[in-house]
Amino acid sequence: MAARPIAEPDFEARVRASFARQKAMSALGATLTQVTPGVVEIEMPYNETFTQQHGFLHAGAISMALDSACGYAAYSLMPADAGVLTIEFKVNLLAPGRGERFLFRGTVTKPGRTIIVADGQAYAYDGEGEAKMIATMTGTMMTVVGRQGIEG
Amino acid sequence: MAARPIAEPDFEARVRASFARQKAMSALGATLTQVTPGVVEIEMPYNETFTQQHGFLHAGAISMALDSACGYAAYSLMPADAGVLTIEFKVNLLAPGRGERFLFRGTVTKPGRTIIVADGQAYAYDGEGEAKMIATMTGTMMTVVGRQGIEG
Amino acid sequence: MAARPIAEPDFEARVRASFARQKAMSALGATLTQVTPGVVEIEMPYNETFTQQHGFLHAGAISMALDSACGYAAYSLMPADAGVLTIEFKVNLLAPGRGERFLFRGTVTKPGRTIIVADGQAYAYDGEGEAKMIATMTGTMMTVVGRQGIEG
Amino acid sequence: MAARPIAEPDFEARVRASFARQKAMSALGATLTQVTPGVVEIEMPYNETFTQQHGFLHAGAISMALDSACGYAAYSLMPADAGVLTIEFKVNLLAPGRGERFLFRGTVTKPGRTIIVADGQAYAYDGEGEAKMIATMTGTMMTVVGRQGIEG
Repeated sequence: MAARPIAEPDFEARVRASFARQKAMSALGATLTQVTPGVVEIEMPYNETFTQQHGFLHAGAISMALDSACGYAAYSLMPADAGVLTIEFKVNLLAPGRGERFLFRGTVTKPGRTIIVADGQAYAYDGEGEAKMIATMTGTMMTVVGRQGIEG
Repeated sequence: MAARPIAEPDFEARVRASFARQKAMSALGATLTQVTPGVVEIEMPYNETFTQQHGFLHAGAISMALDSACGYAAYSLMPADAGVLTIEFKVNLLAPGRGERFLFRGTVTKPGRTIIVADGQAYAYDGEGEAKMIATMTGTMMTVVGRQGIEG
Repeated sequence: MAARPIAEPDFEARVRASFARQKAMSALGATLTQVTPGVVEIEMPYNETFTQQHGFLHAGAISMALDSACGYAAYSLMPADAGVLTIEFKVNLLAPGRGERFLFRGTVTKPGRTIIVADGQAYAYDGEGEAKMIATMTGTMMTVVGRQGIEG
Repeated sequence: MAARPIAEPDFEARVRASFARQKAMSALGATLTQVTPGVVEIEMPYNETFTQQHGFLHAGAISMALDSACGYAAYSLMPADAGVLTIEFKVNLLAPGRGERFLFRGTVTKPGRTIIVADGQAYAYDGEGEAKMIATMTGTMMTVVGRQGIEG
């Protein structure tokens, strides 16, 4: 980004409050570990409940956490009365979702008044703490203001 | 597709066996409702456990079911000893994931020996049984043969 | 689409006028062959000028024509004073761009006030007039009103 | 990337020879300015021939150059007898294609024997040489060996 984006003073509290309402994140066992303006990180341990047929973390579970990371990276730069909606995203699965724990980072690539583009990376950590990038996401997020039911 | 793709005789049994091993699908409460050569349908009721902050089905849950539908549509056309891996997918979220139940259909658009492209649609049904398309996916799947741990 | 989208009376004239201003389309040798509400078709003969290293039509040339087809499909449903911008698109290349002529169709999948999603297909025709689908696109388009320099 | 990918000794000559066969690149007025293992840069001046209706560089022209940059980044890491094909890509248009000249960089994110994932960025330079990122790409490329007509 050309310039560091400016976040409203309460951005972290708003991100954390909205994340806490995402039941899908507690189902995954995911926690919000870092919230800075335009960058959000989510972590989770390996969770056998969300595996695919080979025992790896399901691509959908990876997408779920990456979408939340990218969405909250975008939301961290939005006005206080806005809500965030995902318009679309693309995920590339680079390596099997195999590891002891996982980190999902979302970063705003292009801030904007209505449309925000964020990129995400997912990493798997093995027992020695070695990280491997297992997926990338590019997502397009929308700032929604004044639509009933879309707050936060 | 120019020609109806030819599936191995046991394609349905193989798809059903692999789906049964996807713990993520039982976590979602999803069932495999239709398996024909190159087309797979998955259904699930609304599940509050997988909602985002506004109470809609999380984009990641929609992606999870669509990825399985597209992946098994591809797998239904693969040789008996192959495994299926998702290389990448893109999802467009067209409407909020609000409804009583959901249908996810994956259809092979382009069969191939190594690379298979599948397209998916997700529909939400309201209490009257009216359907609304809420998401589309395009996914690229890979046929994997002889790689340990990637069977089915 | 649940309902046939309603276009302004002059939609075809506006689409044709905007297309005529796209110098990239005349560079390709592409013509606008069909304009109906939400569906636009563009055709072009094989053009050696836009080939890649194997002599096939370059994926970028296919994308250029598909982007215009999808963008004008979206634009055909926009208000008379709006301009159209592409936010993002994804293209899957299904077969080499080999043929005597090419057809690119863009269709609106989801109309909307600000965001419009369109899907496209590209077909190659051989000397006997046999068509083969060579690429698909999903694109997200934006309605822009009152921004200087973005008319049409 | 965890480790610097290893390229065959003649990688640069092969990339340059293949690029020289891409007629679409000379039509755009694009030149190959940097070729290192896994990273390729292409530059071009503003070219009115490839504009869309508002006078900006057409999204398809941006995609064409990005696809070549990503494709050759992938090709630079392939065996000497291989050819490269683009399976799919996604482009996000971040800002209008307005500028005096343009730089397109493709970088391999994930090398692989069959599938290579590359990410690209497009920058526009104004008269003072100030750069602005105008687009990003994620592309999936395939190594093709022994298929007639797919060399280089």
